[in-house]
Amino acid sequence: MIKVGIIGVGTVGASVVNILKENADVISARAGVDIVAKSGVVKNLNKDRSYLGIKISDNVDDILNDDEIDIVVELMGGVEEPFEVVKRALKSGKAVVTANKALLAYHRYELQEMAQDIAFEYEASVAGGIPIINALRDGLSANHIESIMGIMNGTCNYMMTKMTNEGVAYNDILKEAQELGYAESDPTFDVGGYDAAHKLLILASIAYGIDAKPEDILIEGIQNVSQDDISFAKEFGYVIKLLGIAKKDKNEVELRVHACLIKKQEMIAKIDGVMNGISVVGDKVGETLYYGPGAGGDATASAVVANIIDIARSGKSKPMLGFDKPMEGKLTLKATDDIESKYYIRINVSDKKGVLARITKIFEDNNISVETMLQRPSLANSANLLISTHIAYERDIQTMMKEIEKLEFVNFAPVMIRIV
Amino acid sequence: MIKVGIIGVGTVGASVVNILKENADVISARAGVDIVAKSGVVKNLNKDRSYLGIKISDNVDDILNDDEIDIVVELMGGVEEPFEVVKRALKSGKAVVTANKALLAYHRYELQEMAQDIAFEYEASVAGGIPIINALRDGLSANHIESIMGIMNGTCNYMMTKMTNEGVAYNDILKEAQELGYAESDPTFDVGGYDAAHKLLILASIAYGIDAKPEDILIEGIQNVSQDDISFAKEFGYVIKLLGIAKKDKNEVELRVHACLIKKQEMIAKIDGVMNGISVVGDKVGETLYYGPGAGGDATASAVVANIIDIARSGKSKPMLGFDKPMEGKLTLKATDDIESKYYIRINVSDKKGVLARITKIFEDNNISVETMLQRPSLANSANLLISTHIAYERDIQTMMKEIEKLEFVNFAPVMIRIV
Repeated sequence: MIKVGIIGVGTVGASVVNILKENADVISARAGVDIVAKSGVVKNLNKDRSYLGIKISDNVDDILNDDEIDIVVELMGGVEEPFEVVKRALKSGKAVVTANKALLAYHRYELQEMAQDIAFEYEASVAGGIPIINALRDGLSANHIESIMGIMNGTCNYMMTKMTNEGVAYNDILKEAQELGYAESDPTFDVGGYDAAHKLLILASIAYGIDAKPEDILIEGIQNVSQDDISFAKEFGYVIKLLGIAKKDKNEVELRVHACLIKKQEMIAKIDGVMNGISVVGDKVGETLYYGPGAGGDATASAVVANIIDIARSGKSKPMLGFDKPMEGKLTLKATDDIESKYYIRINVSDKKGVLARITKIFEDNNISVETMLQRPSLANSANLLISTHIAYERDIQTMMKEIEKLEFVNFAPVMIRIV
Repeated sequence: MIKVGIIGVGTVGASVVNILKENADVISARAGVDIVAKSGVVKNLNKDRSYLGIKISDNVDDILNDDEIDIVVELMGGVEEPFEVVKRALKSGKAVVTANKALLAYHRYELQEMAQDIAFEYEASVAGGIPIINALRDGLSANHIESIMGIMNGTCNYMMTKMTNEGVAYNDILKEAQELGYAESDPTFDVGGYDAAHKLLILASIAYGIDAKPEDILIEGIQNVSQDDISFAKEFGYVIKLLGIAKKDKNEVELRVHACLIKKQEMIAKIDGVMNGISVVGDKVGETLYYGPGAGGDATASAVVANIIDIARSGKSKPMLGFDKPMEGKLTLKATDDIESKYYIRINVSDKKGVLARITKIFEDNNISVETMLQRPSLANSANLLISTHIAYERDIQTMMKEIEKLEFVNFAPVMIRIV
């Protein structure tokens, strides 16, 4: 019998306990052994958790020093505190399963080093119930990964879907998402792209063995997307979504999170609402895509328990990040400035003579060539210029955006959304 | 170093050899060991295969008796001949990787028995490059599987997509698919649903541990789907696709392959062209979906090589079908007659008085209640009745279809498509 201790018994932790109980028949058939939740650790003992039927304490030592516990499930949240807990667990020979993407975004290589001989699994850390770690690390292991493009944040996807389908303004839909519990009262972590960035970094390590931290990569959110942008997108056959993107270009890998215009025929453009979906292109397999719920207690716990089953039946069967030796020679992180993309730009201008000529000139001077341009009347005496470009360098776009912002007839900071 | 022998070096076999060579850097990093293709066996030595750079013979003994070969890749096709070959390989202690769905449709439980202590893998047997075995067996192992619905045959999906988007008639699109190499000169195996059925049986074993052979389950193809049906589908918000369906209902599992009307908002309805996609609903995770190329040399070989890598790094790490003990008590195959569904029915009738009343009466007499009915003029003096029903039993529909066919004013055998 395998015994599990859970550190952090919130929604997901309670679901883990329940699944181990309710689905014990299939779990023991698949694991080849019975698995039970023995005990849990929480911050606050005041809440009644007796219905879970496991021993609850507020001291991590009760799990970490318990010789009967084989597998520690870490669901505390945070970075440094769980890192200490997980290190102690591994040192004492306990396998670890975590759903903590922040922990991995910062410490995955140290953890891989520490977990050479003991299982450390983290399927639930990316895209909740979708077994994407499993797919990328095992199912696609024969491939050089050319790109990963993912809808990895359900809150943002819910908001963008509503804005697209119902014409709701950003602030209204944010309020609704908060009321529904999809977004926190401080929504920055979700709508600012940070949550997606944590997940992207984990996938990029498995695909490329590349080491980067959130502060090393391009992270933007959806806060500036307006109905003007959405209607431009519709007119030209795009939808707008927040994507995490990892892309190999020769010996460099670019990593970025931002709102994107995506051709509406693409499978990833068809993923609506709170659902997540990740497209992976391998050099041999071509495009595969993985779709499902990216959050929720039971969906996330489904991934945690799958890891527990795998450890119960196979022990340590593979390297944590999926490789033993460095892959593909030396892949390095591409500098943000060197990223190439097509861009969509919205500029609100006072409706005066010569405006278009001035703006066009600035585009030209920065080596940016315009693909389409729309002018739409905006509030009194102003207009929105909606422009898409051919492929350009990020550095040139950034310089140009600053120059445009300074023009006396430009009313607000211009908005830029990348096109994939 | 791990050495691989390939029995059956056609398109997929050649791709396996090439991937092991071209992607050796990532493969050895992930496997922790170098993997090389040593030799291959073919039926006909006349074709030049020297470009592959491996020893080629026409005698399986050259692989089966070679003590240096660790893993045998079986890509022969057929059922009994590969079964004998694979048995010999397992007996001599060689791990086996196969892409052969027919072999598994008939012998998977015997193979599971024989492969207790040695790895036997088969990711490529279902949906080519999509790691669906991996997802179902490992990623979703915490779940009772409620249903599997899959587009598992690219040929049929290509044809149905073209019929829907371009209004092409069945016979014309079949000819085109044959010219493109998507369909064989005898297309029955694809368009008749048998290929999809083999794959469905494999997935159903992993999900439910249920034993069934192709002849035990309901298998129909797309041969009777016409533009009339497609336009009815469009009008009511459906698309028509060939699906393999496994569904649990209490202690029974229904297994069936047939054309379906699917609500066009469903993710699986959005999968077009030759691509495959499989939706799996788990009791805890909810719906997840896996999309990608279901055929092609490199895509299929991507799955074969992933299995080889997994065996190289982990050996025998899990039961072949994913379980050690029977799952979920006693699940039995539901009798075809007991399947419940909504149905769409097309009846071509001579345009006479009293026809509708007679037909409606027959529906009623068989406990079948009509949801919508359309009458469309057809060729001279005839009309098509396009009818959808509420949920009914398969046995009642079958009886009713026979009664309707006998009516003097019914011009052809009526056509029925199930609605999911």
